[in-house]
Amino acid sequence: MVNDTQLKGDLAAAARDHLWMHFARMGAYQDHPAPVIDRAEGAYLWDTHGHKVLDGLSGLFVVQVGHGREELAEVMAEQARKLAFFPVWGYATEPAIRLAERIAGYAPGDLNRVFFTTGGGEAVESAWKLAKQFFKLTGKPLKHKVISRMTAYHGTPQGALAITGLPPMKQAFEPLTPGGFRVPNTNIYRAERMGAPTDPHEFGVWAADRIEEAILFEGPDTVAAVFLEPVQNSGGCFTPPPGYFQRVREICDRHDVLLVSDEVICGFGRHGTMFAAEKFGYQPDIITCAKGMSSGYGPIGAMIATDRLMEPFLKDKAWFPHGYTFAGHPVSAAVSLANLDIFERENLNQRVLDNEDALGATLRKLLDLDIVGDVRGDGYFWAVELVKDKTTKETFGPAERETLIKQFLPKALFRNGLYARPDDRGEPVIQVAPPLTCGQAEFDEMERILRTTLTEAQQLL
Amino acid sequence: MVNDTQLKGDLAAAARDHLWMHFARMGAYQDHPAPVIDRAEGAYLWDTHGHKVLDGLSGLFVVQVGHGREELAEVMAEQARKLAFFPVWGYATEPAIRLAERIAGYAPGDLNRVFFTTGGGEAVESAWKLAKQFFKLTGKPLKHKVISRMTAYHGTPQGALAITGLPPMKQAFEPLTPGGFRVPNTNIYRAERMGAPTDPHEFGVWAADRIEEAILFEGPDTVAAVFLEPVQNSGGCFTPPPGYFQRVREICDRHDVLLVSDEVICGFGRHGTMFAAEKFGYQPDIITCAKGMSSGYGPIGAMIATDRLMEPFLKDKAWFPHGYTFAGHPVSAAVSLANLDIFERENLNQRVLDNEDALGATLRKLLDLDIVGDVRGDGYFWAVELVKDKTTKETFGPAERETLIKQFLPKALFRNGLYARPDDRGEPVIQVAPPLTCGQAEFDEMERILRTTLTEAQQLL
Repeated sequence: MVNDTQLKGDLAAAARDHLWMHFARMGAYQDHPAPVIDRAEGAYLWDTHGHKVLDGLSGLFVVQVGHGREELAEVMAEQARKLAFFPVWGYATEPAIRLAERIAGYAPGDLNRVFFTTGGGEAVESAWKLAKQFFKLTGKPLKHKVISRMTAYHGTPQGALAITGLPPMKQAFEPLTPGGFRVPNTNIYRAERMGAPTDPHEFGVWAADRIEEAILFEGPDTVAAVFLEPVQNSGGCFTPPPGYFQRVREICDRHDVLLVSDEVICGFGRHGTMFAAEKFGYQPDIITCAKGMSSGYGPIGAMIATDRLMEPFLKDKAWFPHGYTFAGHPVSAAVSLANLDIFERENLNQRVLDNEDALGATLRKLLDLDIVGDVRGDGYFWAVELVKDKTTKETFGPAERETLIKQFLPKALFRNGLYARPDDRGEPVIQVAPPLTCGQAEFDEMERILRTTLTEAQQLL
Repeated sequence: MVNDTQLKGDLAAAARDHLWMHFARMGAYQDHPAPVIDRAEGAYLWDTHGHKVLDGLSGLFVVQVGHGREELAEVMAEQARKLAFFPVWGYATEPAIRLAERIAGYAPGDLNRVFFTTGGGEAVESAWKLAKQFFKLTGKPLKHKVISRMTAYHGTPQGALAITGLPPMKQAFEPLTPGGFRVPNTNIYRAERMGAPTDPHEFGVWAADRIEEAILFEGPDTVAAVFLEPVQNSGGCFTPPPGYFQRVREICDRHDVLLVSDEVICGFGRHGTMFAAEKFGYQPDIITCAKGMSSGYGPIGAMIATDRLMEPFLKDKAWFPHGYTFAGHPVSAAVSLANLDIFERENLNQRVLDNEDALGATLRKLLDLDIVGDVRGDGYFWAVELVKDKTTKETFGPAERETLIKQFLPKALFRNGLYARPDDRGEPVIQVAPPLTCGQAEFDEMERILRTTLTEAQQLL
């Protein structure tokens, strides 16, 4: 008979020998087994040792309604019994139709056309491909380039990766799809370093104008789209300065460039609205989304386009030669509908709007620690930036980042009871994005664990 | 109260206004509603009008164990209750570990490292990205190009699409990722047109040598990988001639080029073995797979790499900066394990090996029709090529293809009770790939409906 310890040893060996984990240094798992998440309920996770942690990241900005929802499990089984799989190619399925209709209803303006994918990267690929073909069909065949922002993450397929503004994630795979160009992001905390004004309104104008500068430099006739997250994830939750998106919209209109709102993280309640474009008051030409659509119960994503963008594809034999086998999967679509039912029944968007200031205020308490330079975010999506010197905003060097972000913080936070995201794709930050069901009790718990762990970190350095 | 007809009208309107279907001429659905698949059981589908058809395509080469498996629905609900979502980034989950171990056990040789995705296109992207980085890490940084075959489909993200050998599917999106080069495929039925020998052994040598020619022309120092399906789907089930893959393997070894076996369609029993490389007797460096892994009950795919390819990634701080949020999804992984249990319990691979000749023989009866020029395939994966003149092998022109492949056949086959795939990405073909649970009764049913429909088609032209 195999005992529990052997089973765990067996599982650890199987993971070490066979599971290639994502974005991971696999060498680190050769002597020390990878931690294994075993089960989850509401806002809490348990690993295979029975250790309980608060899921301060909603899995990966995904599990909006919380883990272990019995009704969602039931819906999945029911749909799997009836029709587990059929592609949305020449035939449709009811869950995909109903979900498309529902999402179009939530999306602002005439964003009425829903092209399903299985996730966010594919949604970004689809959006770029649509932008390219749309302009070829409408007499502007040179328009194919994309403007995006430094440090922004838009996915890993080699089209989306060309839009991603993180050179260290790209160089091993170059050459990528041609046509991706970068402009500064809205990191107002580092405005001075960029030579930008520090007044929020002036900074917003400055940052938006960098987009126009890039369009004019590349040639408006060659630029198809601008890809922007409402709140930029990588770098640590850069919120849009006042007036920023309104000015970007004007610039896009002026040069006939599509504005793509990449809401893979920000969509579905993360900021208290179904789509964050609504929260920040702008009208995109395309929304890309995924994660929160199903709260992660089933893989699904979508590109949502305006009626204008579909128009040339409705003519005669025109088609968009693009698709994915598992896109709009019946089980994923059915569970997304049930997930959105929970949003409405439990008023989750209003809950986020009611609580976002409290979450921000709770996290800002950490500003009394020497290591905490900035706390920023919106809705249930926040970052705590760590600095070496608070007054000068001096950041940590490579060796300190290695110790802090790669070695100490992930393990210490988890040990202390919090799953959050230490990251240094820009400056070193810890990101939190709890399930939308969380309230002051969980905010306090996050603040307490972050305080304990960051105090340990200060002593370490 | 809403009656059934109104509900269906409502559904049709919602589909027309909001669901952007894949690879579809959306104009066609503006006046005529898209057909909607409602439910499925075993090898049969029912549309929303209650019309029953044989699923001769397993959804899309996906549903190996058949539709409506109660035990799979139960497993999905159980896993969703316990842990519906967690990414395989810094932490692992038991279903992902167990599935990786199991797949590595099935894969030939030391293909031991499993990198999960959510589908086939992402698996192809992952394989190319791995090939690029592997050679950069091992002192051959120029190696980044890929050789693939004319008419072959390898997916739609802009990296995978650069590998895909179907120019009409690419031109609207160019420029794509640089580095994709094409060689002739193994369409022996059209060997003469390619100036190739018609003896199968000689043809195999000829076709393999085209790959070496391309490697030598581009420069072996610049070529990273050759991507080949065991049996090429697009163009219509081109099987490998005897000796082909053995010679390709030698060529790849000679020039240190990775051989990627793209088994998104051919893997998981489609040819009577877990991986088709085993059936056709060659050892790839990477296998890409998806579809049949879960029989489509949950979106999932994988890239399987040899130990050699992971080696440089195990050193120090090395990492593969690549991943997907929904890859190795717990529910998809759990249902894949249960799906593979069914494979073993019901001996599905042996069933395919026992029945493949009967399926071929049954379909070859159609060769008595004037319109049928060739019947080819292997396992449960077959194509019937339609010709204008059987003796000269003259194919149909654009207008006839439009009538036949786009207009008549899809609707007529479905009306007559068969869901199959009329396609003209190469010559006009009808493809069939039934669930692996099918036997002579379903083969006969397919042949009967194909005969009826093709007889109608002959009268039409």
